[in-house]
Amino acid sequence: MSIRVGIIGYGNLGRGVECAICQNPDMELKVVFTRRNPEQVKILTEGTVVCRLEEAAAWKDKLDVVILCGGSATDLPMQTPEYARLFNVVDSFDTHARIPEHFANVDASAKEGGNVAIISVGWDPGMFSLNRMYANAILPEGKDYTFWGRGVSQGHSDAIRRIAGVKDAKQYTIPVESALKAVRAGENPELTTRQKHTRECFVVLEEGADAAKVEAEIKNMPNYFSDYDTTVHFISEEELKRNHSRIPHGGFVLRSGVTGWEKENSHLIEYSLKLDSNPEFTASVIVAYARAAYRLASEGQTGCKTVFDIAPAYLSAKSGEELRASML
Amino acid sequence: MSIRVGIIGYGNLGRGVECAICQNPDMELKVVFTRRNPEQVKILTEGTVVCRLEEAAAWKDKLDVVILCGGSATDLPMQTPEYARLFNVVDSFDTHARIPEHFANVDASAKEGGNVAIISVGWDPGMFSLNRMYANAILPEGKDYTFWGRGVSQGHSDAIRRIAGVKDAKQYTIPVESALKAVRAGENPELTTRQKHTRECFVVLEEGADAAKVEAEIKNMPNYFSDYDTTVHFISEEELKRNHSRIPHGGFVLRSGVTGWEKENSHLIEYSLKLDSNPEFTASVIVAYARAAYRLASEGQTGCKTVFDIAPAYLSAKSGEELRASML
Repeated sequence: MSIRVGIIGYGNLGRGVECAICQNPDMELKVVFTRRNPEQVKILTEGTVVCRLEEAAAWKDKLDVVILCGGSATDLPMQTPEYARLFNVVDSFDTHARIPEHFANVDASAKEGGNVAIISVGWDPGMFSLNRMYANAILPEGKDYTFWGRGVSQGHSDAIRRIAGVKDAKQYTIPVESALKAVRAGENPELTTRQKHTRECFVVLEEGADAAKVEAEIKNMPNYFSDYDTTVHFISEEELKRNHSRIPHGGFVLRSGVTGWEKENSHLIEYSLKLDSNPEFTASVIVAYARAAYRLASEGQTGCKTVFDIAPAYLSAKSGEELRASML
Repeated sequence: MSIRVGIIGYGNLGRGVECAICQNPDMELKVVFTRRNPEQVKILTEGTVVCRLEEAAAWKDKLDVVILCGGSATDLPMQTPEYARLFNVVDSFDTHARIPEHFANVDASAKEGGNVAIISVGWDPGMFSLNRMYANAILPEGKDYTFWGRGVSQGHSDAIRRIAGVKDAKQYTIPVESALKAVRAGENPELTTRQKHTRECFVVLEEGADAAKVEAEIKNMPNYFSDYDTTVHFISEEELKRNHSRIPHGGFVLRSGVTGWEKENSHLIEYSLKLDSNPEFTASVIVAYARAAYRLASEGQTGCKTVFDIAPAYLSAKSGEELRASML
C-alpha cells in the first residue's frame, strides 16, 4: 500500500524527485508525464512508465499525489491550478513576489477538485521560510538575515550566456564571510546588497570574442551584477565541464533577537544548508511534503497549503509514537 | 481581546515567561500561581496578581492558557496532568526517556477536560527535536548529530555542589570543535561521549576543603564526569558571582545525508542556537506555543500535542496571508 506518485516534467528536478522517491520505501513512482516524445525520455526507475502530459487526466484515480517539476516562470502558474483540479499536488513555485497570487489560484482549483495542493516547497521558499517563521515567532524583537551560497545561480548563469560572444557560463553566489561574522557576533549590522554577497563568474568565450568587452558587460548588467562585487574568470570549455558541472548551493538563515525585562539578553538562531545538488535536495523536501499532501487529503482536507500550514509530523514516515520516542 | 495567560511557578523559567509575554502584544499575563506565600513573591508586571496555587481552579474560565514552569523531576509529572483537566496548558517537560509516559498521562486528562496540552516545549526537547525531525524526513539516508553548549548545565553544577567541601559551582558543557568540524566536513564520524563534549567546572571551596580530593571526586563521578575530559578551576566566591552568574547555553543539531541514484551527492543541514539566557529563550519558545494551544483549543481540538503535531503558522501572531507575503 505505497503512496502512488506521478511526476510532471523530467528535468533536473524531476530526476531528483525520482531519486528521492527511491529513498522512501512507503512511496512508489508510477508515472512520469512529459511534453517531449515519451520514447525519447529515459528514466531511471524500472517499471515506471513515461506518458504524454495530455494523458494525465486518465490517471486521476491511479495516483495519490502528483509532483510538478516545471519552472516558476511559465510552467507552474498554469500547471499547478490545472492539475490541482485532478490530483493532490506539490510544486516548488519560487517567485516570492507572486506567491500570494499563485496561492489564490491554486486554492480555488484545489478546493474545486477536492484536493490538497502544497506550493512553494523546497529550501527557499521552503525550509528557509520555515526557519524565518519559527525564529520570528520565538524572538519577536530581532533582525533577520538570509545569505545564499556558495552556490550556482541558474538565473545569473543564464543572464551571462545571453551576452554576445559568450559560449557558456556558470555563476556562483558567495556570501561575504565578514558580514556573516558580524551577524553571528550579534552586531545587527545594516547590510547593503554589495556587503552581503559577491558574484564569481566562469565564462567560456566564443572564438574571437572580446574578453574585456564581455567582462564589462557582465559587471555592469543592472539587477544581476551592477550592485555586486563581481569577479570574471575566462576558462576553456573543458575546464568548465570538468570543474563546474555540478549544481551545489546552500545558504544561511539567521535571526538575532533580545529577551528579558530590560532586553538584556541576546540570542542567535542559525539554520544553514550545504548542498552538493540543489535540485536533488529541493526534490527531497518536495517528496516529504508529498507524503504530507497524501495524508492531509486522506483526512478530508482540501485547498492550498504552504509549509507554514503543515504540522511537521505529516512529513515523516514514522508514527507519532515513534517520533516522540526517538526524536523529541 | 488578548490571550489571557497564567503562570504556575515563578523561578527563572516563570520570570522568563513573564518577560516573553511582554514582547507579544496579543497576550496578557493575568496571574502567577505560587506555592510560596504570594505576598513574598514580587513579580515584574504591573496589574498582574500573584495567587496561591490552591486557588488555580477558581480561574478556570478566566484564563485561555496556563504555562507550567515547574521542574521535570517532580513538578510536571504531577502538575501537567492535573492542570490539563482545567486549562489549556504548555509545559517544558525535558526528561527525554519519560516523554511517552508523560504524553499518555497528559493526553488522557486533557481529553477528559476538553483542553489542549502541549508538552516538552523549549529547545531540547523543542526546536532541536523539530530540526532533527524535519532533517530526517528530508534526508532519510544520513546521520544525526547533536552537540550542546557552550553552556551551563544545571544538573552537573548541582552534582558538584553536593560534594563535601564544595560551597558553590558552575559547570559548562563545551562541544569539541574538531568533532563539529569533522561532521561539517561530511566525514560522518562515529563519536564517543568523550569525543563530543568536554566539561569545565568552576568551583568555590569551603574553608579548609581539600582541593585535590574535590577535583578527583568530580573527575571520577560516574555518568556526570567520568566519561568526559573535565577541567576543574578553583575560584573565589566573588569571581564566581562576577563571571559565572549568567545562564548561557546553546548547541548544534546536524544531519549529514546523501541523495542521488548512486548516493553521489552529500548534504549538510545544520541548526544552531547561541543563547545568553537558557531560561528566557526556553520561555520564548513556550510562549509562542501557548498561542498555538489557545488557537487549537479555539478550533475545538483536545488532547496532548508536541511540537511535531503543530503547524508552524499557529505560533505566529501574523495571519496566513501576512506570513505568505512576508516570510515565504
